[in-house]
Amino acid sequence: MPNSATDSEAVPLLPTLRHATNSSSQVAIVGSNLCPVESLDYEIAENDFLKQDWRARSKTHIFQYVFMKWLLCFFIGIIVSLIGFTNNLAVENLAGVKFVVTSNMMLARRFSMAFFVFAVTNLILTLFASLLTAFVAPAAAGSGIPEVKAYLNGVDAPHIFSLPTLVVKIIGNISAVSGSLLIGKAGPMVHTGACVASLLAQGGSKRFGLTWRWLRYFNNDRDRRDLVTCGSAAGIAASFRAPLGGVLFALEEMSSWWRSALLWRIFFSTAVVAIVLRALIDVCLSGKCGLFGKGGLIVFDVYSENASYHLGDVLPVLLLAFFGGILGSIYNFLLEKVLRAYNYIYEKGVAWKILLACAISIFTSCLLFGLPFLASCQPCPADALEECPTIGRSGNFKKYQCPPGHYNDLASLIFNTNDDAIKNLFSKNTDFEFHYLSVLVFFITCFFLSILSYGIVAPAGLFVPVIVTGASYGRFVGMLIGSNSNLNDGLYAVLGAASFLGGSMRMTVSLCVILLELTNNLLLLPMMMVVLLISKTVADAFNANIYNLIMKIKGFPYLHSHVEPYMRQLTVGDVVTGPLQVFKGIEKIETIVHVLKTTNHNGFPVVDEPPLAPAPVLYGLILRAHILTLLKKRVFLSSPMAFDSSTLAKFKADEFAKKGSGRGDRIEDVELSEEELNMYLDLHPFSNASPYTVLETMSLAKALVLFREVGLRHILVIPKFSNRPPLVGILTRHDFMPEHILGLRPSLSRSRWKRLRIRLPFLS
Amino acid sequence: MPNSATDSEAVPLLPTLRHATNSSSQVAIVGSNLCPVESLDYEIAENDFLKQDWRARSKTHIFQYVFMKWLLCFFIGIIVSLIGFTNNLAVENLAGVKFVVTSNMMLARRFSMAFFVFAVTNLILTLFASLLTAFVAPAAAGSGIPEVKAYLNGVDAPHIFSLPTLVVKIIGNISAVSGSLLIGKAGPMVHTGACVASLLAQGGSKRFGLTWRWLRYFNNDRDRRDLVTCGSAAGIAASFRAPLGGVLFALEEMSSWWRSALLWRIFFSTAVVAIVLRALIDVCLSGKCGLFGKGGLIVFDVYSENASYHLGDVLPVLLLAFFGGILGSIYNFLLEKVLRAYNYIYEKGVAWKILLACAISIFTSCLLFGLPFLASCQPCPADALEECPTIGRSGNFKKYQCPPGHYNDLASLIFNTNDDAIKNLFSKNTDFEFHYLSVLVFFITCFFLSILSYGIVAPAGLFVPVIVTGASYGRFVGMLIGSNSNLNDGLYAVLGAASFLGGSMRMTVSLCVILLELTNNLLLLPMMMVVLLISKTVADAFNANIYNLIMKIKGFPYLHSHVEPYMRQLTVGDVVTGPLQVFKGIEKIETIVHVLKTTNHNGFPVVDEPPLAPAPVLYGLILRAHILTLLKKRVFLSSPMAFDSSTLAKFKADEFAKKGSGRGDRIEDVELSEEELNMYLDLHPFSNASPYTVLETMSLAKALVLFREVGLRHILVIPKFSNRPPLVGILTRHDFMPEHILGLRPSLSRSRWKRLRIRLPFLS
Repeated sequence: MPNSATDSEAVPLLPTLRHATNSSSQVAIVGSNLCPVESLDYEIAENDFLKQDWRARSKTHIFQYVFMKWLLCFFIGIIVSLIGFTNNLAVENLAGVKFVVTSNMMLARRFSMAFFVFAVTNLILTLFASLLTAFVAPAAAGSGIPEVKAYLNGVDAPHIFSLPTLVVKIIGNISAVSGSLLIGKAGPMVHTGACVASLLAQGGSKRFGLTWRWLRYFNNDRDRRDLVTCGSAAGIAASFRAPLGGVLFALEEMSSWWRSALLWRIFFSTAVVAIVLRALIDVCLSGKCGLFGKGGLIVFDVYSENASYHLGDVLPVLLLAFFGGILGSIYNFLLEKVLRAYNYIYEKGVAWKILLACAISIFTSCLLFGLPFLASCQPCPADALEECPTIGRSGNFKKYQCPPGHYNDLASLIFNTNDDAIKNLFSKNTDFEFHYLSVLVFFITCFFLSILSYGIVAPAGLFVPVIVTGASYGRFVGMLIGSNSNLNDGLYAVLGAASFLGGSMRMTVSLCVILLELTNNLLLLPMMMVVLLISKTVADAFNANIYNLIMKIKGFPYLHSHVEPYMRQLTVGDVVTGPLQVFKGIEKIETIVHVLKTTNHNGFPVVDEPPLAPAPVLYGLILRAHILTLLKKRVFLSSPMAFDSSTLAKFKADEFAKKGSGRGDRIEDVELSEEELNMYLDLHPFSNASPYTVLETMSLAKALVLFREVGLRHILVIPKFSNRPPLVGILTRHDFMPEHILGLRPSLSRSRWKRLRIRLPFLS
Repeated sequence: MPNSATDSEAVPLLPTLRHATNSSSQVAIVGSNLCPVESLDYEIAENDFLKQDWRARSKTHIFQYVFMKWLLCFFIGIIVSLIGFTNNLAVENLAGVKFVVTSNMMLARRFSMAFFVFAVTNLILTLFASLLTAFVAPAAAGSGIPEVKAYLNGVDAPHIFSLPTLVVKIIGNISAVSGSLLIGKAGPMVHTGACVASLLAQGGSKRFGLTWRWLRYFNNDRDRRDLVTCGSAAGIAASFRAPLGGVLFALEEMSSWWRSALLWRIFFSTAVVAIVLRALIDVCLSGKCGLFGKGGLIVFDVYSENASYHLGDVLPVLLLAFFGGILGSIYNFLLEKVLRAYNYIYEKGVAWKILLACAISIFTSCLLFGLPFLASCQPCPADALEECPTIGRSGNFKKYQCPPGHYNDLASLIFNTNDDAIKNLFSKNTDFEFHYLSVLVFFITCFFLSILSYGIVAPAGLFVPVIVTGASYGRFVGMLIGSNSNLNDGLYAVLGAASFLGGSMRMTVSLCVILLELTNNLLLLPMMMVVLLISKTVADAFNANIYNLIMKIKGFPYLHSHVEPYMRQLTVGDVVTGPLQVFKGIEKIETIVHVLKTTNHNGFPVVDEPPLAPAPVLYGLILRAHILTLLKKRVFLSSPMAFDSSTLAKFKADEFAKKGSGRGDRIEDVELSEEELNMYLDLHPFSNASPYTVLETMSLAKALVLFREVGLRHILVIPKFSNRPPLVGILTRHDFMPEHILGLRPSLSRSRWKRLRIRLPFLS
């Protein structure tokens, strides 16, 4: 802030005791490119100008707004369910045709030809997906859940919600899943849902000229956050046909802020998804969807009769849950290492990404095709409920290389889509169909293959691989226990999937509901709850939730809700870093432009000085985006005076609306003449006059609670003593990051206050 | 604050521009007695003294704390499920014996004798419940859900969690429900669960000498809040055997603050409930529980086969939901009026309370016994699946006054426990058993009787009456539609219950899950979601959720999460009221005692003045409870100086722990000598040095967001200009109450900013 109005140099007003700048955690890896990370503005900027606008809004406008928001939730439900359905339809038909063709060749014993067709089809599909991802929308790689979770926490990584990302996510995922890679559809569906919601909320894609004016109500981060939460819930609802599971997933795993009005809206979106899917499946059951309908859209329907279990079954189930938790944490550990290794490879160039994807595809094809040859052929059971060996696509008795009247049990699991494999494992009538060695081989294959496959440059989910791995683990345990338990092997597979999901994803209520909705049996509930509790507890002792690990690798500055113990030992004054840039209430254009060009801050305190005020006093906080809007509007004052109401009337509220993510104006695009640079701007009407403030003696822990619970982007730090300048500094998300704090105070990380691995409830 | 240390008069330091005191909403009706309302301390008081204590805590202590908290969740689950089971067992046996005896008399056609036995038994049971409630624990009256909900919002109404309340709640509810009143068990179970949790958390009941030292970790409001949330979830889980429903009920309806660690803990508690109940029911199914086991512990199991529904069924279901919502809002409207009338009667004295309860009991007995005589006798169906007419207690074909081979369909509904009536209505095999007029009579009876019965002075829930009324409404609609729909009448009853619940209680996800767990059929999900959405939307247009209405009648200052529009027009400086009482960092005992005696504030700002500081400066906030602890400890200083560390070592952290609710020390109990009154106390180490502060120019809306989201009891308001004293005032919960604000600014209530009835999403 200049010392006088004529001074064009931006000299910091305050004694800059702390010159350290916060350089950590300002960039993230999105689609393995380094991107600058920005925070989102969830706080309502209560400035004079917008208050005028609110007063002018009629009841009609308000109702229009409410109606529009509900309408968007409805559209999100419709669009996401249609995408989810199309996705399943496409995968079932693409992969189905592939399996039918190769199976027919196998029946004719043309093994090498079958392998060639199988491997080449897979390679082409994978190559297509990875080329699309690498060159069109790198942000579409991976599951997308970590990105959406970070977004809902207030971290805006660019391009994650753009139209190309959406298109690549859908097509790439269909292609990669059809290519028999061991990856899932659920994570990408969550990202797709969030993308759809974000694009609808910002009124379409400006870059591609697809915009709708009547969506202009939602050009702010708060509404977009609500709708993105709806979208991610709809994504889970559409991938598992689990509307309640979707609501709870959004609540438990995705969202960082929660209001009961939002719960209701999410419930509405997922209800729409449930109804649309039900109607579409009714259509498909009549056989109009090609190969889809027999296999597709997983609902496993394990038991329609009562599941009975007794006291003696408790111990094996507890052991299953315990080791499931351990396996889950090992899975997370290995996956993290592999992702770090891949990131290292990806730095060498885009060709390496494609090459790795192709290598994984070929490796997968070899395993899927080759491993069943290791299994011995089983004679068909006399009382089989379905044809043995299977002729068409789905069914438990794949003939593969076996002689007539025999089937290959490993092929039924491994040479199949993941959905069908899960169905076979969960099935209650298959207790003697699979040899335990086959299930073991399948488990090991899935475990390692899914770890290797997740990191490739293509849209890839984690849910289905984890479920299939867990189901084979559970089935294997069930077989080992055998007749010592009353539970059948299908039920063990369900519980195994629960334990592995609990160990890897660490959710409770939402996983429970998703699994119940998948298996359609509420009587499993008490057991499922116990299994999830144990596996999560065990796994939490070793490492974090898989999505949090991925977020950390990607570098998202995610704010957790718990407080690290050392934060209680620090005050905000200890971590706030300079240099601080402040504006005067009525500021010279030249100063503004200079400050904007030389810093990358997104909020600037506005301080009134004499003669505007008897003593320097904090007026408010103005956002960079709003200043840029003012500069572009070019309504300047020739002398330092306040805007009158007629000048204010020239501005419209929607000019200050937030553009879509990553699409803000830049100071470099604003061209101003020499004359204009010497004019003035009255920042008062556009400053948020009610910014949240803390005293510099406030403990960091409590400031974090305020920041996190209220969902802020900036906290102003004010001095304790009144004889100081009215502002000490600004806290942003990055100032709360452990890396930053421990960087400023290395001694803390060695102190006994270092966080215990096991999360302590009173700290959270 | 005195102007000098020798001045014993407590003169306000600040120019008291605002002399209005906040007198509204400081008392509540609990059990129809007027009680002072206090707020709870959810904020961690970060003072020097406690920081010392934390540093001293070893890892063992921390693990002990974590372990204890999980152990308590476990105990809550165990105890609540045992209580829930006992409750059901007792009701089924008490009411069962009564119905068997009267039915046998009816079989012998001794009608007047049967009526006499029925009415007198009911009267005695009701009288017992109401005497117990009125004289032992008035706070046990009603459902208890509003009290628990207010507690979780931070409102502490005394006695709601005391041991007598717990005992009366359990026994009184068993007695009243067995007395055939149209009241429920679920609400009282929620209160019971919360009571159990609170008593465990405060280490037992001090008043009755039942305390455990090893529970001392949880003598603070934060931990108690967490455990009470667990307890209320366990209550719902135990009453409906719906563990997930319990979790979601606690989340959606009860809790005001939510953390994901808490979700996990609640999930654990309800899992324990589910497992214990399952084991106990296994015992009862083998016939060891008297009349229980045939009827008890409602799980309706409507459909184990697939429910099929088609496009043509959509319109009737939508209409059902629409009118269900309207009926629900009428129900809320009438219930509110009746409760206000009852409160007016109750002011006349305790005899009137008992009299009203007896009158309702006699009226109910007359209706239940008399109405079936209006119904015509139906011939027994030839293909009845069960005996017709019924001989024992449960069954659809009550003989009543009918000739042999006939049954009275209205008696099967009305002359029965509510649980059995619901079972009969939900049943899928009873499409032709009930005449539509009988169902209509039953619906009207339930509707009005439950409105009249809720307000009596006995523990009485609302869930079951609402379900039974809704089920009869749905069944009636189903019968009117008849063969125009593919759905059977039992399914309509389920959807009718959903619509009436949605219209009255206004929950979404939790009701959906509770109903699914009750009916044990996931395929109803999409329909249930639509019904709940419509009925809630329709009903919300007219009035508020039933529990919010009751909380308003009781006078709890509940803080809603949405912001009223006029709050954006006000600053905190506009509403903060005086007189403000502040203490100096080192204060004279006499001043402290005088201030404590003349005010009833619960927090006092601590301001350092010269010579302690160069200028008056805010140090922190000290709680009345902590000052009282200091005064009782009598460690005083003979001159105004700071405590040294050896003096500090005389204090122990658990002396500052919060006692159980309504059991704090009082200043009147502290006797000090003249000499002691002239000594000093150093308040610094015991003051919360990190209180949350807002500038006086902060908008009230944003201050409310801070207050509500962070869960505060006090916000300090600091001046904008530095030449003013360091503090403008204190905001508490009552300052945010609409009655208070509109009392200060009557013009706002007439402005167009008055809140629209339909809740606007961007305001919440």
